[in-house]
Amino acid sequence: MSLINENFLELQESYLFSTVAKKVAKFAEEHPDKKIIKLGIGDVTRPIAKACIEAMHKAVDELGTEEGFRGYGPEQGYDFLRNAIVENDYKARGIDISSDEVFVSDGAKCDCGNIVDIFAKDNVVAITDPVYPVYLDTNVMAGRSGKFNKEKQVYENIVYLPVTAQNNFEPELPKQKVDLIYLCFPNNPTGTVLTKEQLKKWVDYAKENNSIILYDAAYEAFITEKNIPHSIYEVEGAKDVAIEFKSYSKTAGFTGVRCAYLVIPKTVKGYTKTGEKIELNKLWNRRTCTKFNGVSYIVQRAAEATYSKEGKKEIKANIEYYLENAKIIREGLIKAGYEVYGGVNSPYIWLKVPGNMTSWEFFDKLLAEKNIVGTPGSGFGPHGEGYFRLTAFGTRENSIEAIKRI
Amino acid sequence: MSLINENFLELQESYLFSTVAKKVAKFAEEHPDKKIIKLGIGDVTRPIAKACIEAMHKAVDELGTEEGFRGYGPEQGYDFLRNAIVENDYKARGIDISSDEVFVSDGAKCDCGNIVDIFAKDNVVAITDPVYPVYLDTNVMAGRSGKFNKEKQVYENIVYLPVTAQNNFEPELPKQKVDLIYLCFPNNPTGTVLTKEQLKKWVDYAKENNSIILYDAAYEAFITEKNIPHSIYEVEGAKDVAIEFKSYSKTAGFTGVRCAYLVIPKTVKGYTKTGEKIELNKLWNRRTCTKFNGVSYIVQRAAEATYSKEGKKEIKANIEYYLENAKIIREGLIKAGYEVYGGVNSPYIWLKVPGNMTSWEFFDKLLAEKNIVGTPGSGFGPHGEGYFRLTAFGTRENSIEAIKRI
Repeated sequence: MSLINENFLELQESYLFSTVAKKVAKFAEEHPDKKIIKLGIGDVTRPIAKACIEAMHKAVDELGTEEGFRGYGPEQGYDFLRNAIVENDYKARGIDISSDEVFVSDGAKCDCGNIVDIFAKDNVVAITDPVYPVYLDTNVMAGRSGKFNKEKQVYENIVYLPVTAQNNFEPELPKQKVDLIYLCFPNNPTGTVLTKEQLKKWVDYAKENNSIILYDAAYEAFITEKNIPHSIYEVEGAKDVAIEFKSYSKTAGFTGVRCAYLVIPKTVKGYTKTGEKIELNKLWNRRTCTKFNGVSYIVQRAAEATYSKEGKKEIKANIEYYLENAKIIREGLIKAGYEVYGGVNSPYIWLKVPGNMTSWEFFDKLLAEKNIVGTPGSGFGPHGEGYFRLTAFGTRENSIEAIKRI
Repeated sequence: MSLINENFLELQESYLFSTVAKKVAKFAEEHPDKKIIKLGIGDVTRPIAKACIEAMHKAVDELGTEEGFRGYGPEQGYDFLRNAIVENDYKARGIDISSDEVFVSDGAKCDCGNIVDIFAKDNVVAITDPVYPVYLDTNVMAGRSGKFNKEKQVYENIVYLPVTAQNNFEPELPKQKVDLIYLCFPNNPTGTVLTKEQLKKWVDYAKENNSIILYDAAYEAFITEKNIPHSIYEVEGAKDVAIEFKSYSKTAGFTGVRCAYLVIPKTVKGYTKTGEKIELNKLWNRRTCTKFNGVSYIVQRAAEATYSKEGKKEIKANIEYYLENAKIIREGLIKAGYEVYGGVNSPYIWLKVPGNMTSWEFFDKLLAEKNIVGTPGSGFGPHGEGYFRLTAFGTRENSIEAIKRI
């Protein structure tokens, strides 16, 4: 009898975006005259940079000829891309990462989800709250969460680290020992960041407790302020304890093109039950060779082009476009009297819902009165209740219009 | 303390292709005058069909414009591709599969590897021997294999089903109860097939024992004979017990482009420990939404183009090219007195090593005397010993030249 992985049955259905979609559809049907502005979902809207488009055309042409044809590439990614990553994302910032510590993939969501494969079931997992749901759900599937407590809306074995206005969106170090720590900065959904000094506390904690930090830096391209690390490896000691996830999705608009990478320095070690140290880079390499066959050659050429002179210029312009949207939304909300976070080093604006409304009540009000769609903070975890997310990924016109309405 | 998944430590390092590469490099260095012909690795060499190239150029252009830009697509694949799959690969063969039973992915290796996520650790796994190593290794990683017995070269909890000349490459039904059964036909590495009647026995076994068949049909495009099923769903009852893996890699030369799909009919059920039936389609959908973000839009357009009139014609011509190579190699070997299998419905030719030589001894002899590289059968499992694999994926010229030398 084929037995299913019953951990899947512990997953809580997330109705967040489907409920949003249903409510919007109902409103649109009842009010066909209203122009609804959608600032809910975190997907980009600007076209792919010309440099990347050209690189892809060239790669496609190569595959159509006998001389240029390429079959299976290296599972870990082509050297041309791994080397470009090392040069531009690390060496240029004074960080010493070698190309065999970089693994090219088809998405940070896949990487964040698949990385759990190399760890034992018995690790204690800490996540910030609110949080990108993938960290939590993939650990539920792997059997690390324990049962869901419906009353408290939390899993019994997960350590939740609240990030709210009360602690200035800086998670406190856990009181108990935790083994795997998910951190995402610039943060999704709150749009907030940690300074190098704040992040250093986490690296020190991980070193003391032999924990691993799973650091999601998918939004690092949006950082505008100094002293905010673009990579966790800017922090001393991080190369011993941190795995870093990066993505071209938000940076270069690759949400439909699909490319990302993760970095596991060879100095990062996990432990066997008897205390033997094991290089996580080796385990991940074995997983990659066994379960993955590399990213499309065409896509890897596009990712490489993001590092060309022309590519960098175009991508910077796109990021600045979104950041200007963020500024317009952020400053407009402040002017309108809202308590606002994020939006400076991030495409996300996180606002405190006024009065005693819940996140969903505010959603309904904003849709009904201003015809604007955002995302209720409670959808990202219990400590997201009372907050609301708007994104800067819309058009300039819609961002300005939304603020005018508010 | 972060604990690693110690099942990884049970993996046996495969030195197959690296040892092949080392031996070839050494021979080439010592004999710079010899022209070595490589018929070892199962990667295609023909360029991508023009119809697919054109479709990719068009998709790339779309992504470069504001109107045509697409961000995140559906995790399960775009409807245009899922519908084309249903129409062409199923409906056209009289098989009733609906588009939400099809999941588009970036490779059959990923699908074969990731599918284990939805099953419990305690399932008994059966694989044929010799076998594509991914089925085995991914189950070792998931903790289903038990310890490796070095003497017998087998894992203690895996049920091995020999496929050799003795049983005419038709695996016998297991005597014990097994829960997950991996079958691959046309087979890699043996190049042999099962008829509909032979496959029916497995479907009946699975139905009687509530087992699941994981059916890898990556090479179905090479089938030339009648009564050989292109899909397991041609067999009555299979829609209740089989998951099917298909790939554009060998069919359309997409090993570097990356696209595949798997099919889980909604009628396929797994069980909880208490005997409750659970739709595997639902579990896989949840896994897909949580750990995957869909295949590159560009690549999905290329896959769609394989079903266009022009695409079908070009792809058929490529397949025929490889099959003609297979015929040349197969018939040449027979003429030279070898005992040969496969090569009729498959790009792989599986030959019995003459005399009492081992697979590796024959490898050395063929390289030294004929300057031809193949793959030792023992690299695919203990029952591959005494066999040897040649592939038809080389050029016509090299295939002819290789046979001349033999």
